[in-house]
Amino acid sequence: MNTQNTICAISTPSGAGGIAVIRVSGHDAFSIVDKIYRPAKNDVSLGNQLPYTLSFGKIVHSLSQGIAGQARNDNKIEEVLDEVLVAVFRAPNSFTGEDTVEISCHGSVFIQQEILKLLLANGCTLAHAGEFTQRAFLNGKMDLSQAEAVADVIASSSAASHRLAMNQMRGGFSKELFVLRSQLLDFVSLIELELDFSEEDVEFADRIRLLELADTIKLTLTKLVNSFSLGNVLKNGIPVVIVGETNVGKSTLLNYLLHEEKAIVSDVHGTTRDVIEDVVNVQGISFRFIDTAGIRDTTDAIESLGIKRTFQKIDQASIVIWMVDATQFNKEIDKLADKIVPRTADKKLLLVINKIDKLSKEEQRILEQQFLPQIKAEHIYLSAKYQQNTEKLESALLKSADLTGFDKQDVIVSNVRHYEALSKALESIQRVEDGLKSNLSGDFISQDIRECMHYLGEITGEISTDEVLGNIFSRFCVGK
Amino acid sequence: MNTQNTICAISTPSGAGGIAVIRVSGHDAFSIVDKIYRPAKNDVSLGNQLPYTLSFGKIVHSLSQGIAGQARNDNKIEEVLDEVLVAVFRAPNSFTGEDTVEISCHGSVFIQQEILKLLLANGCTLAHAGEFTQRAFLNGKMDLSQAEAVADVIASSSAASHRLAMNQMRGGFSKELFVLRSQLLDFVSLIELELDFSEEDVEFADRIRLLELADTIKLTLTKLVNSFSLGNVLKNGIPVVIVGETNVGKSTLLNYLLHEEKAIVSDVHGTTRDVIEDVVNVQGISFRFIDTAGIRDTTDAIESLGIKRTFQKIDQASIVIWMVDATQFNKEIDKLADKIVPRTADKKLLLVINKIDKLSKEEQRILEQQFLPQIKAEHIYLSAKYQQNTEKLESALLKSADLTGFDKQDVIVSNVRHYEALSKALESIQRVEDGLKSNLSGDFISQDIRECMHYLGEITGEISTDEVLGNIFSRFCVGK
Repeated sequence: MNTQNTICAISTPSGAGGIAVIRVSGHDAFSIVDKIYRPAKNDVSLGNQLPYTLSFGKIVHSLSQGIAGQARNDNKIEEVLDEVLVAVFRAPNSFTGEDTVEISCHGSVFIQQEILKLLLANGCTLAHAGEFTQRAFLNGKMDLSQAEAVADVIASSSAASHRLAMNQMRGGFSKELFVLRSQLLDFVSLIELELDFSEEDVEFADRIRLLELADTIKLTLTKLVNSFSLGNVLKNGIPVVIVGETNVGKSTLLNYLLHEEKAIVSDVHGTTRDVIEDVVNVQGISFRFIDTAGIRDTTDAIESLGIKRTFQKIDQASIVIWMVDATQFNKEIDKLADKIVPRTADKKLLLVINKIDKLSKEEQRILEQQFLPQIKAEHIYLSAKYQQNTEKLESALLKSADLTGFDKQDVIVSNVRHYEALSKALESIQRVEDGLKSNLSGDFISQDIRECMHYLGEITGEISTDEVLGNIFSRFCVGK
Repeated sequence: MNTQNTICAISTPSGAGGIAVIRVSGHDAFSIVDKIYRPAKNDVSLGNQLPYTLSFGKIVHSLSQGIAGQARNDNKIEEVLDEVLVAVFRAPNSFTGEDTVEISCHGSVFIQQEILKLLLANGCTLAHAGEFTQRAFLNGKMDLSQAEAVADVIASSSAASHRLAMNQMRGGFSKELFVLRSQLLDFVSLIELELDFSEEDVEFADRIRLLELADTIKLTLTKLVNSFSLGNVLKNGIPVVIVGETNVGKSTLLNYLLHEEKAIVSDVHGTTRDVIEDVVNVQGISFRFIDTAGIRDTTDAIESLGIKRTFQKIDQASIVIWMVDATQFNKEIDKLADKIVPRTADKKLLLVINKIDKLSKEEQRILEQQFLPQIKAEHIYLSAKYQQNTEKLESALLKSADLTGFDKQDVIVSNVRHYEALSKALESIQRVEDGLKSNLSGDFISQDIRECMHYLGEITGEISTDEVLGNIFSRFCVGK
């Protein structure tokens, strides 16, 4: 990783718009931009422009080296490429911690590319994906978990996943880990001090207090590790599978749910319709709806395969919507109860009775007295077609998401890398506890504590390898 | 057009990116953003932040009114939506001429939308397409032709069209019109003074000098009107039609041309492949290549129709590339010369002899002695397949574009509205000249001069109607 060069990239979304921003960061940011920028007033170099100020001016290129086009003579006259605003940030008070210039230009694709070309021609190199954030990390502007959160913030498409990423970016998680690490450091220092005096057989570290501390840390780590399942669903959407016989209205319901929030339906890249997973934002929580083949008895081999897959999808879901046709409920419930209910023991099952517009009072009475008591599930009467009671389904979904176990201020882990490191840290602290209980010698205990600290340090980037960094930042967009 | 309200819009291209910019402009820009912005240092309101400076801080929303999500209590605590940079511009020294705030936020679609929602909830209205530029016009920051050029700058995809739009935006065209109008004003003032003294039969305005002036103005207007055909091709691409028999390599050539510059191939929206018009940027000049059906004798009715259309496309083109197969040139040239050559009298015809890798020395001799002299066209030997001499074709295209009649510093008209107004102004000035020559009375002449000034004023917006403005700015993108 070369941080000696000065990097540039278009930081705004790709395409044409009113304005675009090109970011330049590094040791030569000012001198490189000076070569192509002519401020309208006060002809000072950017090195003399006050930090956190903007100046208005022109980006110019000399015609003989610049764009060809109609240029037919070799006079070195400067042509105006664009009128821009230029913002200056001086190291270390910038996002990257380096000298930084942000050029706000007109948002034509042509202008963006030409300014980029001019910067490259004058000594910049094109930034890699995430390189601005990576430099911020390397320059100590943020720790690694915060840097990772920057990408999550940009990718977030629901209030819940956004809040998660924003908390992490603002350092909530880092603070928690910092506390753990400093407690462990106090702990291990005392034990290692004992080792220095090992021949004198002293105990600086009060074993009972240490055991308490290990227990507290274990609890915190356990909470963090357990939060991952929530963090994961908040980030990627709570998996909801819709099952039922064919023609009960599953697709109508799905379409309704997707349509209502069409604007914030997120494209899950790389998934095709046959593993359909459409993410819908319901009051700030993402739900990942999974469509399934209708269940019915069949001797057709291929259809059986599809139905088998339906049951697999039930296993993967957190919430199962079992949809029955109100006019057919007796047949359907009889036939499917045994197949569906046992598979949903650790899940939330919602029995949705569709086509209520066709349900008579008498039928409803039979349904409620005879059938519903058999099934331990919340039931919702619905007309997907006429969109009756659909809001009840939405609130049932929100309730089923069951986020009550966690508070908004809680730190929630949503990153697999963090989850794995925390799990390993938890194993280490468990060994510390076991060691203390069995009066293991200080050097073994110290080793386990150091291991625990190592895993926590991996998360914040105090311990990192180029490979890990490469993996993390390659997932960023260019320009961030 | 209400300019009392404070407007906001996302000004950067749509979609996710590293950063996005939301622009707020109007009387209440500072007080509205103050409600949702908390600067990190110096807790001053934006009204007290120095213009042309940036401050770092947080966009907050109170949980009870903001995003729902996990919010379950009604404490009015403020949650951080994003960490942002806020730039302040004070009226009249801003793009719009009004108080303006630009919020640079993280470029997630979610954050962009949420900040926009917060601004709307706190008193902003969503900007119409082009409304920022429209306000710049209404506040006298630029004239109408400059405002129109802003949209052209953003839409430009080649160096030539960009230069055109940039010159216009920077006021080159406006200056030219201003000179014409002030000359006309001097002119008409003297004549109207005469009218005041009509009973005394004096002539303040020297008719000979006036005639000279009218002639000069007529020349300038003629030049501007004539520049439109060039302006139009620079803006929309020079139409090049590729014709020839089937299988001579037309598609191979087209693919080569498109592929080489794939990154800057612009999507012409609304065109389907059957009216294929792919724009390719060759050294800063846009060429609009038009594919055609191969010409051959046929009795098939539908194919005949396709061939008829090929000839229509020749009529629409500025440059005709007639492609022949080197191994079949004798047949093809004999057969098509009569059909193609007469249709290209006012166009540039390039005879491209393809598949030269298969051409023997002897065949080339026959071709050059026997066939080429018959056809008055530049010829280029080529292998589209092996990409031999393709650079010769490119320079022939650039030469054929024939932009020599105009200098880079010349004002070139590329806007249909301007073209029409200029044409009408030209008619008026012609009537002025005729009137002067036939000693028409001053009041008629004055009327024609006023009419000419009116049309020029329409271009710069000194004379404009809401309808005209609506038409112009509705073509802008939102956020500009």
